[in-house]
Amino acid sequence: MNDQSRTSSRTGGRAARRAARATALPEHLRPVRPGMEGGVLNVLTQAQIERIHQAALTALETIGLADAPQSGIDYLVGAGCILGDDGRIRFPRALVEDTIAKANRSITLHSRDGKTDLELSGTKVHYGTAGAAVSMVDVHGQEYRDSTVQDLHDAARICQQLENIHFVQRPMVCRDIVDNLEMDLNTIYAACSGTFKHIGTSFTEPSHVAPAMEMIYMIAGGEDKYRERPFVSNSNCFVVPPMKFATESCEVMEECIKAGMPVLLLSAGMAGATAPSTIAGAITQATAECLAGLVYVNAVSPGAPAVFGTWPFGLDLRTGAMSIGSGEQALLTAGCAQMHRFYDLPGGAAAGASDSKLPDMQAGWEQMCSNVMAGLSGLNMVYEAAGMHASLLGFCHESLILSDDLIGQAQRCVRGIEVTDETLALDQIAEVCMGGPGHYLGTDATLSRMQADYVYPVFGDRTSPKEWVELGKPGLIEKAIKRKEEILSTPSPARFDPLLDAELRANFKIHLPL
Amino acid sequence: MNDQSRTSSRTGGRAARRAARATALPEHLRPVRPGMEGGVLNVLTQAQIERIHQAALTALETIGLADAPQSGIDYLVGAGCILGDDGRIRFPRALVEDTIAKANRSITLHSRDGKTDLELSGTKVHYGTAGAAVSMVDVHGQEYRDSTVQDLHDAARICQQLENIHFVQRPMVCRDIVDNLEMDLNTIYAACSGTFKHIGTSFTEPSHVAPAMEMIYMIAGGEDKYRERPFVSNSNCFVVPPMKFATESCEVMEECIKAGMPVLLLSAGMAGATAPSTIAGAITQATAECLAGLVYVNAVSPGAPAVFGTWPFGLDLRTGAMSIGSGEQALLTAGCAQMHRFYDLPGGAAAGASDSKLPDMQAGWEQMCSNVMAGLSGLNMVYEAAGMHASLLGFCHESLILSDDLIGQAQRCVRGIEVTDETLALDQIAEVCMGGPGHYLGTDATLSRMQADYVYPVFGDRTSPKEWVELGKPGLIEKAIKRKEEILSTPSPARFDPLLDAELRANFKIHLPL
Repeated sequence: MNDQSRTSSRTGGRAARRAARATALPEHLRPVRPGMEGGVLNVLTQAQIERIHQAALTALETIGLADAPQSGIDYLVGAGCILGDDGRIRFPRALVEDTIAKANRSITLHSRDGKTDLELSGTKVHYGTAGAAVSMVDVHGQEYRDSTVQDLHDAARICQQLENIHFVQRPMVCRDIVDNLEMDLNTIYAACSGTFKHIGTSFTEPSHVAPAMEMIYMIAGGEDKYRERPFVSNSNCFVVPPMKFATESCEVMEECIKAGMPVLLLSAGMAGATAPSTIAGAITQATAECLAGLVYVNAVSPGAPAVFGTWPFGLDLRTGAMSIGSGEQALLTAGCAQMHRFYDLPGGAAAGASDSKLPDMQAGWEQMCSNVMAGLSGLNMVYEAAGMHASLLGFCHESLILSDDLIGQAQRCVRGIEVTDETLALDQIAEVCMGGPGHYLGTDATLSRMQADYVYPVFGDRTSPKEWVELGKPGLIEKAIKRKEEILSTPSPARFDPLLDAELRANFKIHLPL
Repeated sequence: MNDQSRTSSRTGGRAARRAARATALPEHLRPVRPGMEGGVLNVLTQAQIERIHQAALTALETIGLADAPQSGIDYLVGAGCILGDDGRIRFPRALVEDTIAKANRSITLHSRDGKTDLELSGTKVHYGTAGAAVSMVDVHGQEYRDSTVQDLHDAARICQQLENIHFVQRPMVCRDIVDNLEMDLNTIYAACSGTFKHIGTSFTEPSHVAPAMEMIYMIAGGEDKYRERPFVSNSNCFVVPPMKFATESCEVMEECIKAGMPVLLLSAGMAGATAPSTIAGAITQATAECLAGLVYVNAVSPGAPAVFGTWPFGLDLRTGAMSIGSGEQALLTAGCAQMHRFYDLPGGAAAGASDSKLPDMQAGWEQMCSNVMAGLSGLNMVYEAAGMHASLLGFCHESLILSDDLIGQAQRCVRGIEVTDETLALDQIAEVCMGGPGHYLGTDATLSRMQADYVYPVFGDRTSPKEWVELGKPGLIEKAIKRKEEILSTPSPARFDPLLDAELRANFKIHLPL
């Protein structure tokens, strides 16, 4: 955490210190960064984890999963699964245990420019967008309207500028594109031309994978280039909970694995509807389903990169409506993160979304609750961490921008407390108290750590009430709108080279205007 | 968690189930309650805790504290402390260790009516108000104005109605009362006549304790009644960090202990100003100061009830302004909670306050971050948990009301995950998947747990965008304003009996109108 150039301010006086503070910090001195290690929150005890694991194995052995495609049946039976007369595929315990032992436990989700690659292993934490919202939240008019490909592109461009958004899984559906193949292809185009960060996307049908890979290989500069550094991964709802394979999605998954694409094995049961209403039961079922997916992936291609995507969601049981902002949701996600740690597998789950329709106080508390708990639990991939409203139905650009602050603070919590002789500060306490100034303001120890140790909000307000009035009572949303307009008024740094762009437009029907 | 009367709905059909759901749950079935046990979050390792402890002991032994009053010097030297030529009192390690061993580790903070007593021990978590805000936040006009005794009384009345606010330490100063003695007395009157919940208050001068006790004994129905169930405690800033006793406050403390009043030993250093800027250093200093306080209390009266109040606050080091809503603050408080657990002493710290001027998205994320982490860390008393804005300068009734929802969700997280054969739900999964309906909606298992397991927000919105539009896009703040008006338009249930009230008004100058 120390740097000679920073502590040299000892001799430089106040102006030099101010200048040093105003300079952007070198990467290694940033107070928070992608991939910090969590794991200090344990909502489950080791004994509880073992019970969930055993229950999941029993569910796989005795209940199994229905509806695998024929290709999947072949892969799974070939690997040692048993196809029952009832059409369900059951998984012997030993097979599942063996698969866990040999699965890929350290994968890289690449960025297009190599600057923001995500190393998924251990308890390294990353935050990003995800979802399939169908609406955009217009904060001006407090209205919901259909989301478009332009909205998606804009979201990607905004994410490119936000330090604490580490990946861009497609958060919303391009509803202005009627044809599903065109939608899938334009989703990739809109996301990749908006950001260099790692992209996650979905495919409506297995037949869409081939043309999509053609586009992605073109963007990469060739199939070999993509296979070397896959910067797009497949978010794959391979199960229809409870305990049924999603036949077509499994076929998509097989295609993606063959094309060199990492797969997010996404099990999105809803506790009380498509999963048991209890938190333990929902985690058990999601774990069983993702273990089935893991066996499937490794049967197709041993060691293929996969993210263990237990995404159980909460319901409001009074109404049957989805609920994503609850304490129960935060526990579901934190518990899943512990299962990932138990298996030592790259894992992801949903956190940071809100039930509120607008970026208001409710949105703030809901987004922070699950985001900070996910990070403290050491979740590798925190999906839906920013911009998500109305129980996943709406996406909001301004909220996305504000989430950069929110996630920055959550990451500060994940970073935790350093305890060293220097940070314990006994010498400093003695010096200040006995014959010293009686306070720590402006001491070298204070100044030298003020940037590397503290996360300062960009939009969050820390003025006094008096200053706030003098500044005209700046509103949080207004500041976010201004930042959005700034970002979108400059060209996308991730936009394609004109020659590549022309080639893409010649080969595919691109909906975004030139 | 089971109850025969609830599972009897199995035979009663849908109407019976609806009726059962509409009925308020008996206390033991409520999804969250005061005093739930935290402790699953460990931002410090055991080795780090030991280092902080040893550093605190060294600070007490070698640096000690200045500025004790003569009475305090007498008590402390009598107990084994050493008064140095520099006027500082130093604490031998063995004395501190002995004091920790024999201190009162399980105390009750009583309510006036006996219904909401707080048992402080282990990792039992309680949330409440506290502070010394000088302004009220008027959400209508987005203005800050001086706080008054009426505001304090109204805050107490609101707290009385909020299930998740467990105690009412005075959150704001009655700035309309110029005379300090009158202010101290009216603070007690306004709080006690507004709520039965446990009250925390401060005294400006040692001489104010006697008349205040006179008032409190009258409210209690006699000194013996109060001493049996002390429903008012003293929030005492006994130190001026770094490492100096607050001379007059120590005298107040002595008076309070003698009067049978529990004491909150409050050390409120500001990291980077009156405490080291590092989180570990600020925790070390606060721990040392509170250990000094603990020795002091036990020297005055062995086993006297005291709350270990390490309240280090964060600063914005760029500006020197106080910052309370940061990730650093959440870590400061979570780390302190672990020190309390290490000592097995009743402890409290500040969480849940915001730097934002208004109850907006920033307020939501800041309040949740530290509140949920404090609870997960098993902090006995989470002070400043509701209504606090502008880095502790402003209090907001509407925000207080909304915090009841926020804290409810935080408590749900504290409650954690139950893992039993029933909650693992293997039988249920099998039944639903193999020959069953293929979903869990409306199953007995789902319906029987829908109230005892889930916390439903009162103000938080979970409607769909469509329903939300149909309802006229209800705003969070508007709902809180409405609730506030409802509460304040009915008489305070905690108001004094007219005879007692007349007696109090005859003996003291009461500023609140009859």
